[in-house]
Amino acid sequence: MHQTFNAALEINLLHANQTGADHNRAHFDEWGITCLNLMSSPGAGKTVLLERTLFTLKQELKMAVIEGDMTTELDADRLRQYGAPVIAINTGRSCHLDSQMVSGGIHTLAQTYNPLEFDLVFVENVGNLVCPAEFEVGEHAKVALISVTEGEDKPLKYPIMFQEADCLLITKTDLVPYLEFDMQRLESNVRQMNPQVTIIPLSAKTGEGLEQWFDWLRTQI
Amino acid sequence: MHQTFNAALEINLLHANQTGADHNRAHFDEWGITCLNLMSSPGAGKTVLLERTLFTLKQELKMAVIEGDMTTELDADRLRQYGAPVIAINTGRSCHLDSQMVSGGIHTLAQTYNPLEFDLVFVENVGNLVCPAEFEVGEHAKVALISVTEGEDKPLKYPIMFQEADCLLITKTDLVPYLEFDMQRLESNVRQMNPQVTIIPLSAKTGEGLEQWFDWLRTQI
Repeated sequence: MHQTFNAALEINLLHANQTGADHNRAHFDEWGITCLNLMSSPGAGKTVLLERTLFTLKQELKMAVIEGDMTTELDADRLRQYGAPVIAINTGRSCHLDSQMVSGGIHTLAQTYNPLEFDLVFVENVGNLVCPAEFEVGEHAKVALISVTEGEDKPLKYPIMFQEADCLLITKTDLVPYLEFDMQRLESNVRQMNPQVTIIPLSAKTGEGLEQWFDWLRTQI
Repeated sequence: MHQTFNAALEINLLHANQTGADHNRAHFDEWGITCLNLMSSPGAGKTVLLERTLFTLKQELKMAVIEGDMTTELDADRLRQYGAPVIAINTGRSCHLDSQMVSGGIHTLAQTYNPLEFDLVFVENVGNLVCPAEFEVGEHAKVALISVTEGEDKPLKYPIMFQEADCLLITKTDLVPYLEFDMQRLESNVRQMNPQVTIIPLSAKTGEGLEQWFDWLRTQI
């Protein structure tokens, strides 16, 4: 996270955020909703994954998305085509969603729809492999994505995201033939940071791994 | 940047950073060194670009690197093979280099070598398309990288980095044949944020664009 003037200030900031996250989670629990926080570098494929998910599971699950971006509703508009409610949050200069911003999204959702009808709310975080990992937003599980083009060393260099993740999706596997990329080395670096995490290699383009992702989602409901 | 308690605190943080950046730049100017700040998402290719640059220009320019990573010296060790001094800075939980950290790197460099001998110091920032753009470190120019796998919409969604850049490198162009990627659309989105920026598409793998990058570097000395 950003350097702050002193350790006490940093703790206060994270503490205030945690209180808000607990409040958000209490709402989700009251409504019987599972909330998942999707995080990755920009362009790792969070939005296309949500497109595939909203399309494939729309008969099975009632889903909504809280969509975080610094500016624009480009991603929100992409997802709205699939019929699920999408609440867009523009963070301005902020590098991550915090629990207060997500609280605004939750209350908008609950005012516009009957929250008791929903099974699953995805929070798509700002594309950033560092900061979002430290700010809980009230999710029940954290999903991190890393694309094969980012390289095998990233779990060692950006440890917090990989330590915090409950599920790690290794995306864009269709590009592996064109890269010098070692899947086993990436997985071994991930395990070094987090022995328990569920790892699913997938390609939204070819469909590889999507069934495994949907199965993991079903275990979270 | 991270949310802070109030606007005054944010301004103080950036103001303190700016004072440090000006101090660093005064040192560089005194020693006749050009300093460039390299920034991008994780895995966009900053380190491999520096590898190619240190290798190709080593007879022509005296270079050094200040290498920022949250943890590890993996990238620093890669670069040390090329013979140039590499000062590694681990930022811990921090999502960007600030001017105080870089000041430490500069003073280490000046204590170990004769700073008057150097032409060019690269600062390789933490992989993050958001936060580093707001924290000047004393550089004379900012170089942003975006890989073709990240998508054409990124300049619209992460505007600050693209507005701040003096030179934008579009990396991994060797992968274009395997993607649905429109170079003209990316360039047009970049121009919308920053009409003046120098744009160089390149591939460290095939060498495309590297000569143009070296030529741009020479204009900065």
